[in-house]
Order: sequence, then structure tokens, then C-alpha cells
Amino acid sequence: MTKQTPRVGVIGGGQLARMMTPPAINLGLQIKVLAEAAGSSAELATTMVGDYNQLDVVREFARTVDVITFDHEHVPLAVLRALEADGVNVQPPSKALAFAQNKLHMRQQLGELGLPMPAWAEIHDAASLDDFIAANGGVAILKTPIGGYDGKGVRVVRSSVDAKDWLENLADFGGSLLAEEKVDFVRELAQLSARTPGGEFKAWPLVETIQENGVCSAVMAPAPAASAETLAATADIAKRVAEALGVTGVLAVEMFEARDGRIVINELAMRPHNSGHFSIEGSVTSQFEQHLRAVLDLPLGSTAPRAAHSVMVNLLGVDDKNNFVQALDKALQSHPDAKVHTYGKGARAGRKMGHITVVSDSAEHALAEARGAAAVLLRG
Amino acid sequence: MTKQTPRVGVIGGGQLARMMTPPAINLGLQIKVLAEAAGSSAELATTMVGDYNQLDVVREFARTVDVITFDHEHVPLAVLRALEADGVNVQPPSKALAFAQNKLHMRQQLGELGLPMPAWAEIHDAASLDDFIAANGGVAILKTPIGGYDGKGVRVVRSSVDAKDWLENLADFGGSLLAEEKVDFVRELAQLSARTPGGEFKAWPLVETIQENGVCSAVMAPAPAASAETLAATADIAKRVAEALGVTGVLAVEMFEARDGRIVINELAMRPHNSGHFSIEGSVTSQFEQHLRAVLDLPLGSTAPRAAHSVMVNLLGVDDKNNFVQALDKALQSHPDAKVHTYGKGARAGRKMGHITVVSDSAEHALAEARGAAAVLLRG
Repeated sequence: MTKQTPRVGVIGGGQLARMMTPPAINLGLQIKVLAEAAGSSAELATTMVGDYNQLDVVREFARTVDVITFDHEHVPLAVLRALEADGVNVQPPSKALAFAQNKLHMRQQLGELGLPMPAWAEIHDAASLDDFIAANGGVAILKTPIGGYDGKGVRVVRSSVDAKDWLENLADFGGSLLAEEKVDFVRELAQLSARTPGGEFKAWPLVETIQENGVCSAVMAPAPAASAETLAATADIAKRVAEALGVTGVLAVEMFEARDGRIVINELAMRPHNSGHFSIEGSVTSQFEQHLRAVLDLPLGSTAPRAAHSVMVNLLGVDDKNNFVQALDKALQSHPDAKVHTYGKGARAGRKMGHITVVSDSAEHALAEARGAAAVLLRG
Repeated sequence: MTKQTPRVGVIGGGQLARMMTPPAINLGLQIKVLAEAAGSSAELATTMVGDYNQLDVVREFARTVDVITFDHEHVPLAVLRALEADGVNVQPPSKALAFAQNKLHMRQQLGELGLPMPAWAEIHDAASLDDFIAANGGVAILKTPIGGYDGKGVRVVRSSVDAKDWLENLADFGGSLLAEEKVDFVRELAQLSARTPGGEFKAWPLVETIQENGVCSAVMAPAPAASAETLAATADIAKRVAEALGVTGVLAVEMFEARDGRIVINELAMRPHNSGHFSIEGSVTSQFEQHLRAVLDLPLGSTAPRAAHSVMVNLLGVDDKNNFVQALDKALQSHPDAKVHTYGKGARAGRKMGHITVVSDSAEHALAEARGAAAVLLRG
């Protein structure tokens, strides 16, 4: 009997689906993408174009694959639950994704596990928000439980007045908001891991993420000067989160390292994540290959580093013209060690349009080279 | 002005076109494949299905891309010359491919350059073949100038009687045959390199290729115990060949290391080559990425190794059922460091259906792991 090639279906045609394509080709897995529109970033693997909010569309797509997974976290839970009721293999399952889609539920669940978090509270009105602000040094991070990313749906508030518009429309946000301590952090960290439906778990070494204006600009792998205790502790946090929430596939746990030494959980992403792009060149198994293996319940690959240091720098759009093709030759010429990744997306200021990874024996060299190549592409 | 993504057109839908796809995605290049049939190994990048022997088919395909390159060396020179007359950018150009397609012309050209080769002669009749055999220890390798690969079109002869059928049909082979010294070799080597139309040249470190029954079974990168002089000499041979023949893109020079110490040129391939598959994981720039960069006249990437040792083992078909999907989970489970590549081809005994690469600080460990993973997939 000839066994058929496993077929992975990815909902969403963004750069994450795009970057799942090379390992699918290498490993001989079939990848199919349901894209929002033609000409998406994952165009080569797109087999269907349609609206992921519509159950009949997603159902039709699901019939062509062995497992459904995701490029993003925006598929309505109702759609996913209906698929699961049909018997469709959805990884990560809706019960896990519910926590990724709702930051308040995530805090409640992780709180029950006793995992390290910033102080937080559910906010139903101005009074409870002002109380929280008063108890936390006169400032809070206020978040809409659903729909925020890359700085959207997040606001720094010093009084309930700063959140008047949100408080007056609480019903739009499910009836409440999430207030969090504004952590006085020395740096941001991310712990990448993967878990299979069968329960196998593997973590990559902890990384440091550098943000600019609320968007990730660079990632240092491994996180500079992290102790063995810290590495073990953060990998353990990821394992507890993945197991408790029933996460499958790649899980990114974003964390703050506070000035007082605490490491606390900021956000979760249940899919390959910007903090793990370094792993394409930097790890024996990339996060994209691992995600495919995990959602298919295949054994996970080694997460050992391929180099002492890997540095990733994001290519953020500078305007609506420069798609980073203009200066490609100049960048490759001046930085022969830089691995340039562009996502085939239309040019737009601030948009994540690509990234550069450099691996090296020296973190400083890798960062300088990656930023150097990025500068050439930005100026082109 | 927004510059458009460079578009590479590959003629042939085999595993080489398939393996060009991931670096095209990573680097943000558009790849289009003209495949012989639907469902080819390079299916994901296939934009047209048709016969590459027909000028009108190839012409139509050429209109959709910026440069034409190849998965194989079988496109008729007349077709390529007609494209070039149209103004199509063909890389490598027909004048270089003429030498890859005709082993006799290759020997003549390399002979004029004084490059190291086995003794050879053009054979027009039985008498000249018997003379050559007598002068070369009673044995010769007889080759049809055109069309041979993986042991086909090649024969060991000890008398013209052994080649009676070929000698009686010389017109089928262009009027003559190629006789070569049967080199008493201690091992086979391959020198991989790339050259751009603009003249930039880069070589990877020399590799050893291990053949079984005339087909490559494993590649050790770098070639064990090769001296610095040998590495420099073989890289120089590749550079002289590429420049003299006007080769662009990847060039593989297959060589014998003779017992008497000579290193002599066996065959040339003007495309990514089985001996370079290790470079996907083993080099900063893989042969597939480099080929795309070279044919687009983009600057070449670093060919530095990513690990002390890389070993590649071919997955040759065992029967018409096992497509290496059956035991994939077992292979991944038992060999978490092995990078498994399968080509999505139908099962057939002896067919190149995939390969495995392991990188390591130890060549012995890498070879054992790669062969171990292959054994699991073969037995599956």
C-alpha cells in the first residue's frame, strides 16, 4: 500500500503561511492555504480564496486536507467549534485558541495555574479601573480582551478618563476590559516551543525581543546573558502553559524581565511567531517545520541551535513604494552572510514586509550585519 | 517607482526545480516552472505544463519570466538558440549548454585549455577503439556523446566487439563515440561552484561523492582529508571551466582522484547537482539559492560551511509502493537531527525520490545518522 502524503491546511495567506511552505516542500508534506484574497503572501501554496468567517467556506477547504491550522488567530471560535463537531482535525483546537483570542480568559486561566504574571484585573467600570491604577503606581496598561495586536487595542492609562470611550462601549469588548500593571521591565523575552496532540513538547532557547513603537524590530537568539536557571524556568513556563491550555503546534510566550528580577507573562501566540523567525537558519528545526510536524502529530525535530548566535531584524515598510526589491542586489552585495526574507507584500509604511537573519559566533557582529543589510534595503 | 519582483522560469519539473522553490520564497523571488506533466515534483511552482522540445511552448513560457533556466540538460539546443535570437535571457546560455550536452565537445574544449582529464579519444570505427584500448591497459570507458546520465549511455569495453551495436549505428550518436581511460581511482570528488553573467564566481568546498551501481548514494562535505592545495586546485579548475565555457548558474565538476595522485575531470553539470544537496543545510547559501541569484545576475551569497561536516544520503526507490511516507514518523522519531527531503515522486525502484542531510562536528556521526534515517525510510 502506498501511503498518501500528509496534507496540512492553513487558514490565512500571510507571511506565516508563506514561511510554512519551504519546510512543507522539504519534508514532502502537502500544504494548502485558504487565503483572504488572491495574490497573498502565501500565493504559491494557496488552493482556495475565501472568507474564513464563513463556515461553509472553511468547511469546503477542510474537506481537502488532513488537519486545519492557522496563519493568524482571527477565525471565529464558532466556526472552529462547528468544524470540530464535523470531526475535522483542528490544531491548535478551539479550546486552546479561545485563550489566545481572549486576553482576559488567558489571564484567568494562567492565574489559576499560579504562573508568573503582571498584576491584573477585570474592569467593568471607571471605579474599578481607577482603583487598579491607584494600587499600581498611578498607571495601568488597558487592553481590549479581543482583537488587539502589534500595539492595537492597547493603551496606557493614568485615569479612567483616558479610557472614557472604551468604558462607554464595554459591550463592544464583551462587557469588560483587562487592566494590567505597567511592568517596569529591563527587557522583553520570548519563549518559543511546540507541542503535539500526542503530548510531545520541545522548547527552543529563550530569545530577547527588541520592540520599537510597540512592534518587534529585532530578536537576539539566545537571549544575551540569560542564566541556565532562567532558561530552564522559561521553558518550564511554556510547557505548563501548553499543557494546561491544550496548545498544539508552535506556542510563543512573550514575557517581561522586570527590573525587580521577576519574569512575567505578557502575551501568548498559538502559531509560529515573529520571535521565532531566527530559527529558519538558527535552529536544526525551524518553527515553521516544527509547527507542521506538531499539527500532524509527527515527532518533533531537534531545537538545538545551528550557531552560537542568531539575530533577526524585521523589515518594516517605509512608504507605499519601496517593497525591498529595489536595493536587493546592493544588500546582497554588501552583506553576503545576511539571509534576506521578503514576503511578497505590497509596500506600506510600518507593515511587516520581510526580515533578515544573520548567524554568527558573535552576537554583536550578527546584529550589526543584519541591521546593515536592513538599512540598505530601507534606503533603496 | 515600485520595482517588480524578479521572475525566474525553470524548464523541467523535477526535484531540482522543486528545491529551487524554498529559496525563491525566502528571498522573495518569483519562480515559475514549465513541467512535462501535471503533478510533477515541482508542482507548487508549476505555471505551465508542456513539451520543452516544442519551440512555441517554450516561447510562450519565456514571455512570463525575466530569465529562463533549467532543471535538466535536455532542452534541444535549437530551441534555446531560437529563444536567444528572440532576445530571451537564457542562463546558462546555449553556447555553454552545448558542452554539457555533448561529452565529446566538452573533452575537446577542456583539452584545449590544458585542464586535467583522463586520456580520451574520438572514436569513428572499430580500429580506432581497439587502438585506444590497447594504449590504455586493455580497457576503456565508452560513452555516447549525447544523452547519457546515471550510468546510461556508458559502457566498459575491452574490445571493439563489446561496442558492436553502437559502432554499427554511429549516426545515431552524431557520427562518433567518446572513449576514455578507465581511471584507477581511489575516490570520486565533485567541485560545486556558481558564476553570474556579470562574471562573479564562488566555489563551495570540494566534496566526496560515493557511488553505488553508477548512481550517487552519499556525499561527504567537505571531502575528507583533502589538502588545502587540493581544495584550491579544484576550485581553480571549476573557475577555469566556468569562464572558458561561459557557464552561468551552478556548475558541478565531477572528478576522479586517481591512485597515481592525479585529479581528473569526469563530467560537468550546468545546474544544481546531487553532489550539492548538502548545501541546503550545510552552507550559508545553498546551491539552489545561489543558482537563482546567479541566473538573475544578483550578487552571490557566502559559500562558507554552516557546520564542520555535512553528509547527504540519497533515498533511492526500493519498489513501486514505498514512497517514504510510510515510515516518516518512525524516521523523524529515531533521528531528530536528520533533515529529511522527499520529492513527491511516484515510487519506483532505483529512482531518486529524496535525500537526507545531517550536519555535525563529526563526519562519522553525520554519515551514520543519515544512513540510519535512510534505512528506516527504506524498510518502512
